[in-house]
Amino acid sequence: MKAFFRDFKLGIIGGGQLGRMLLQACPNFNLYTCVLDPSEDGPCKGLANEYTQGSLQDYQTVYAFGKQADLLTIEIENVNIDALYQLEREGVEIYPQPRVIEIIQDKRTQKQFYLEQGIPTAEFIMVKNREDVKAHANFFPAFNKLGKGGYDGGGVVSLKTVNDIERAFDDPGLLEKTVDVDTEISVIAARSSLGEIRIFPPVECVFNPDFNLVDYLIAPSSLPKDIQQTAETLARKIAQSLSIVGLLAVEMFVTKEGEILVNEVAPRPHNSGHQTINANDTSQYEQHLRAILGLPLGSTKINTPSAMVNLLGEEGYTGPAIYHGLDKLLEIEGSNIFLYGKEITKPHRKMGHVTILNDDTEALKKRVRLVKKVIKVIS
Amino acid sequence: MKAFFRDFKLGIIGGGQLGRMLLQACPNFNLYTCVLDPSEDGPCKGLANEYTQGSLQDYQTVYAFGKQADLLTIEIENVNIDALYQLEREGVEIYPQPRVIEIIQDKRTQKQFYLEQGIPTAEFIMVKNREDVKAHANFFPAFNKLGKGGYDGGGVVSLKTVNDIERAFDDPGLLEKTVDVDTEISVIAARSSLGEIRIFPPVECVFNPDFNLVDYLIAPSSLPKDIQQTAETLARKIAQSLSIVGLLAVEMFVTKEGEILVNEVAPRPHNSGHQTINANDTSQYEQHLRAILGLPLGSTKINTPSAMVNLLGEEGYTGPAIYHGLDKLLEIEGSNIFLYGKEITKPHRKMGHVTILNDDTEALKKRVRLVKKVIKVIS
Repeated sequence: MKAFFRDFKLGIIGGGQLGRMLLQACPNFNLYTCVLDPSEDGPCKGLANEYTQGSLQDYQTVYAFGKQADLLTIEIENVNIDALYQLEREGVEIYPQPRVIEIIQDKRTQKQFYLEQGIPTAEFIMVKNREDVKAHANFFPAFNKLGKGGYDGGGVVSLKTVNDIERAFDDPGLLEKTVDVDTEISVIAARSSLGEIRIFPPVECVFNPDFNLVDYLIAPSSLPKDIQQTAETLARKIAQSLSIVGLLAVEMFVTKEGEILVNEVAPRPHNSGHQTINANDTSQYEQHLRAILGLPLGSTKINTPSAMVNLLGEEGYTGPAIYHGLDKLLEIEGSNIFLYGKEITKPHRKMGHVTILNDDTEALKKRVRLVKKVIKVIS
Repeated sequence: MKAFFRDFKLGIIGGGQLGRMLLQACPNFNLYTCVLDPSEDGPCKGLANEYTQGSLQDYQTVYAFGKQADLLTIEIENVNIDALYQLEREGVEIYPQPRVIEIIQDKRTQKQFYLEQGIPTAEFIMVKNREDVKAHANFFPAFNKLGKGGYDGGGVVSLKTVNDIERAFDDPGLLEKTVDVDTEISVIAARSSLGEIRIFPPVECVFNPDFNLVDYLIAPSSLPKDIQQTAETLARKIAQSLSIVGLLAVEMFVTKEGEILVNEVAPRPHNSGHQTINANDTSQYEQHLRAILGLPLGSTKINTPSAMVNLLGEEGYTGPAIYHGLDKLLEIEGSNIFLYGKEITKPHRKMGHVTILNDDTEALKKRVRLVKKVIKVIS
């Protein structure tokens, strides 16, 4: 048994909302925490035992931060990878492993990995720049995805006709054939440093097409059991082929024909796993800690159906956030709020989320609509 | 809507495990927190935004701490009450109210309150000292309870015959007639500053008679529905008559005849509500925050049966804690661990707790036994 309850420092690279919720689970394991984040006053400020402001892209910053930690993890994959490799060589435990982060942080190597492993995914071609995208206009309708740096709905544009070319990125990335999606689902797998794998049941995502962000999600999924089973098997297979240690969130498209295509994966807690805090035996955050600490993984069983709604900054407001209608929101039976501690709201910025619990799926959907009606993040 | 998300400081008096779990819920409401605790390095150290070491009994310390908070609450009732009254007079919001804390922090005034309000409770007499206890030996078998300062099983002794007299307290307290208890249950009520009341379903406590501490508890209770209903009504009645704002945990005895007697109450989160974190729509900690912030209270619905086991320091070990068998514990399906961040273990010290979730009550009880077998807090 490792002596990680004294003189043991967990370093978390990235200090956004995922880090914040991870930090909320850390006391249960007596973990001493330190966080690195570029912002002066991010969601993890004041919650970690130590908070360091610094660039996640700067070699020296990441190296110095990681060097004083006993175990290093991430809550965002866009991190200086050379620093991570150097730390790993010097004996710092890093989960997920730098090798895995490197594959995933670039959508091109991620896609290449699926091909090599026989993981079903939408057809794609690599593109170097906008000129290159233009040369492949015969591939439209397609999504143009930035190789590196996309996050939270950024780094993706939809190209339907040649008229859309000017919206294409002028940087290396992918052109991915638009598939006829029936449902988007997400499956979160966890693999521990001991090799144990556990899978959270699939959740169904409803996207807001305007912002390319999850509008709300619902769990469990209403898809036929065999499709859900296939999705879980696929998530397990990817976790296994990557030999990842930690969480792996797998976003998938289910086509009208019932075919499952992997969209993309994230090697960390994920927006589609927030509801596990209230609704499952083990939360995704606790599961991530168990996995990277080499502890047995927890049960992923769902105890109550739930829906999760992101609280986005209202269009037209930028400034100190006001949560208008919070009291009306909390009147909704089974609702729980999670604010992210961000002082400034901006249009479409993720300011928090709401989890709604109810045995009845139709009631859940009705309450999602009510949530969206009553609460507005303004300034 | 109060502007409690910026420039608003929540002060928590007491920095033990209840404060620790309360702090884990605070980020969800964007609360800035400060804690006052006598120990240099208590369970809340490093989790609150500010941590002040100081005596909870010292007028000046409590006053100075409270004066810089916008809202003050407690996680232990043994606090200098004059300081709280002075702060209240000066306009600091204090929930639960000093008036309520004063009634409850002395078991004599607490009992007197039950009498006045017609709340059923075990027969008792007031005693001044050991001599006084001796003079009422005809009242045995009885429990001698210290008026003030008892906590976590301390401050209570069982007096069966006159031979036990030397164990009696030589301080003001109660002699309470021993009742023939069939079951002990606990009901946690919440009353908000707007007057709304919500009741968590009763949980059944199984006591360890040697240490007078909860051995484990199980929820929901297996008692007949009408008894549970009566217990809930009683908890509601007490919350109402006290006009408390915040949580009120009501410990009750159910006699073999099905009569319910109130044992004692606590105006704060309670050991018997830990399992709500995983098993209910709303945790007791979130509920307390909602209540004192003047927000609508949350649903108290149970989503899964659960058991809660306190992790006590093993007999014969005093020193830096080691959680022997933690990995075996976490292998138990549906188990979640909560460590309290206490560096030093002592015999019977509460070092953490384990919540076990399972649909089947018999499986829960079996797993409780397994938990107790596999994990030992030693040094």
